[in-house]
Amino acid sequence: MVKIAVIGGGPGGYVAAIRGAQLGAEVTLIEKDKLGGTCLNVGCIPTKALLHSAGLYEEVKNGSNVGIMAEPKLDFKQVQAHKAEVVERLVSGVTGLMKVNKIKYIKGTAEFERADTLRIRSENGVQAATFDKIIIASGSVPFLPPIPGIEHPCCIDSAGALSLEEVPSSMVIIGGGVIGIELATAYSAFGSKITIVEMMPEILPMMDGELTRIVRKNLERKGIKILTATKVVSIEDQQKCAGVRVEAQGKEEVISGEKVLVCVGRRADTESLQLQKANIKTERGRITVNEWMQTSQPNVYAIGDCASPVMLAHIASAQGELTAEHALGHAGVYLEQTNPSCVYTEPEFAAVGLTEEKAKEKKIDYIVGKFPLAANGKALIMNGGEGMIKIIADAKYKEVLGMHILGPRATDLITEGALAIRLEATLEELISTIHAHPTLGEAVRESALAGEKRAIHIPNL
Amino acid sequence: MVKIAVIGGGPGGYVAAIRGAQLGAEVTLIEKDKLGGTCLNVGCIPTKALLHSAGLYEEVKNGSNVGIMAEPKLDFKQVQAHKAEVVERLVSGVTGLMKVNKIKYIKGTAEFERADTLRIRSENGVQAATFDKIIIASGSVPFLPPIPGIEHPCCIDSAGALSLEEVPSSMVIIGGGVIGIELATAYSAFGSKITIVEMMPEILPMMDGELTRIVRKNLERKGIKILTATKVVSIEDQQKCAGVRVEAQGKEEVISGEKVLVCVGRRADTESLQLQKANIKTERGRITVNEWMQTSQPNVYAIGDCASPVMLAHIASAQGELTAEHALGHAGVYLEQTNPSCVYTEPEFAAVGLTEEKAKEKKIDYIVGKFPLAANGKALIMNGGEGMIKIIADAKYKEVLGMHILGPRATDLITEGALAIRLEATLEELISTIHAHPTLGEAVRESALAGEKRAIHIPNL
Repeated sequence: MVKIAVIGGGPGGYVAAIRGAQLGAEVTLIEKDKLGGTCLNVGCIPTKALLHSAGLYEEVKNGSNVGIMAEPKLDFKQVQAHKAEVVERLVSGVTGLMKVNKIKYIKGTAEFERADTLRIRSENGVQAATFDKIIIASGSVPFLPPIPGIEHPCCIDSAGALSLEEVPSSMVIIGGGVIGIELATAYSAFGSKITIVEMMPEILPMMDGELTRIVRKNLERKGIKILTATKVVSIEDQQKCAGVRVEAQGKEEVISGEKVLVCVGRRADTESLQLQKANIKTERGRITVNEWMQTSQPNVYAIGDCASPVMLAHIASAQGELTAEHALGHAGVYLEQTNPSCVYTEPEFAAVGLTEEKAKEKKIDYIVGKFPLAANGKALIMNGGEGMIKIIADAKYKEVLGMHILGPRATDLITEGALAIRLEATLEELISTIHAHPTLGEAVRESALAGEKRAIHIPNL
Repeated sequence: MVKIAVIGGGPGGYVAAIRGAQLGAEVTLIEKDKLGGTCLNVGCIPTKALLHSAGLYEEVKNGSNVGIMAEPKLDFKQVQAHKAEVVERLVSGVTGLMKVNKIKYIKGTAEFERADTLRIRSENGVQAATFDKIIIASGSVPFLPPIPGIEHPCCIDSAGALSLEEVPSSMVIIGGGVIGIELATAYSAFGSKITIVEMMPEILPMMDGELTRIVRKNLERKGIKILTATKVVSIEDQQKCAGVRVEAQGKEEVISGEKVLVCVGRRADTESLQLQKANIKTERGRITVNEWMQTSQPNVYAIGDCASPVMLAHIASAQGELTAEHALGHAGVYLEQTNPSCVYTEPEFAAVGLTEEKAKEKKIDYIVGKFPLAANGKALIMNGGEGMIKIIADAKYKEVLGMHILGPRATDLITEGALAIRLEATLEELISTIHAHPTLGEAVRESALAGEKRAIHIPNL
């Protein structure tokens, strides 16, 4: 029986462990904190739980438009309780899956002694153990930039923002990436006055620029102040607040926040692993891997945030399945081009494949099909028709290269785009797939039609 | 220039007209009532508008669970006003599209004089006109079964149910098909006491039985009474009410309803067309067509409800594009196997391809992959994890043959299933497409994994 150790019980590690067990390995999983990792405990899941409450709160406030009259009150303690309940249920689910799959779960830490030997520290003391294969899935931690004053007690990271006991009256968010934008969306709905400070020229730099500019307008319309191309100089003490001193085009200003959320990125969490003892190479703290996620030691794999520049739970899970299969002699498949990016704004924002910017950068001869949700019946009913769908296809064969959706349910609609890219589908193949009426999905087909200059519900200019 | 006449301005007719105009034809569209037909005016769109209000009302009533405290009141006049506003906007959109596409729109009626000649009656009088091609898209009307007492003033059809001025205290719904189930869902949420009477052994007979039984339980849990294998004997007068006398297994009972909604089906609306003058064949009132939707007169096409046994707006639209293309010498594509069926229950219910029952009936060697939404993080957040996804695949090649989704956003998630069927995708191809976390779409992948006995988040039994 092949013996596999998995270091870390997040969405990379626990999935790798389960897949390994399915394929007949004897699997040991070592997790120092809670099963489910950042994603379940202080990341994806709690954020979406808060955003769900925030979304309903906003929808009820505007409910009179659709005949539902209410004066909603926010019970933030209950928002947090619901979040905790969901997290608890999922973590206990993963715990159950460990048992069902006969995975030996050790609550403790692991460090390398050699490339095949780990020193495992748990409540049962310290023991060395040898494994045929080791999968590192140690995740990441928030990166704290060297800003003077960042140790101010008002400064929090994303985990802190998810566990606040009260809604702060104001929050300055340093970093306009996915985490910053999602927490801005949630806390703005809950009533915080939000200012986002982003160093880059635009928020969400990896997303399609045209749609991102609409997202920005939506956020600003909700009263969120967004400062781009703006640097944080320092964080100053104010009474019961922090003052964030920012600078743009040579001008400085100070923005007060009851809380200052620092979310400029995350870094691989590998320091305690003693990687050098196993001669496992890293680059800027991140573990170096090949296409099969093997490290410089072929029996050792690294997956997810500790190895991947794209820090997403579903990437970690996909890599987890891949490595378990590879480690056990099976041919795994991992197609990063099908990887969707989701931002849970209101409405949602999701993408897969190439942005228009990337297509230009790669000098691809491309066409664009766009369809505004204002011309989609279901969207009109749901949110007055806010949003847009945009498909990038190659000009010659009309193969779908990218799909970008801003609108209700975008994060689920994007699955069609991912499957289209997976199967190298053309616009014509999307078009000849019947899309039900009235759904938002119809707008995906219409954007494909628009790419062929034959949209039905908008003029083809 | 090819001259095309389109009879009927619903989702079949107006789409055919636009596509014909795009391809260079001179198109005349004749509509006796409102552009948009049943779908926009008294069908899909108004139903979904009511259901949207109903859904929000229910969600707010349960909002305390997620920290949103409210005592919502229903303003049914505003529910109807929102519905009317959406309908108005979409109808005026279609009107605009007629102009943009230079389609001659005649508000009036048309009847055949010969296979190439129509007698058109409008406010400008009666005139005969000759066309190269004629597309009949005359739609359908509710079928009123010959039940004694059905002329009782409390009896309404679906159009009547969509335009009520007040929420009835009770409603008996005769017919447990999509229309009956959707209106039951809406009015039950609004506060009506609902009884559904269905002659068949189960509601929604075209949907997968296993999931339909869950839908039935959900409806019953909301207080909706469902009588299946039950015949309506007669409708009797009661004070301010109607009494619906039903019979099951030899026993009769009378159910009172302030309104009695009769929705046992619809029939092709062709009576006024004088089809016999053009020698256009019909069968039981429905126009007979070949695979290109050509009638017995090759220059005359018939699409949508007047010709198709599957009466769905998106089927009519797909046929509309097909016929316009065929009429103008282009190769159209129409793949009915990619046709999704959607039922806007709470949560939603959608399907594409084969049900398990159909697979059995066709003696296909199939496998099933199932995944309960209770094991999906996003569903847990959204509705406590209610629902299930079920994929039917062929046992040998694992090609996806059917997808069945009961859960939030099902009507949009089903697009992935339709595209999978369109492209003859295998379970492995769904699996090797990365699905974002946390989304409901992940559960589609998990059900494909379950089909391969390698689901991650549930035990594989």
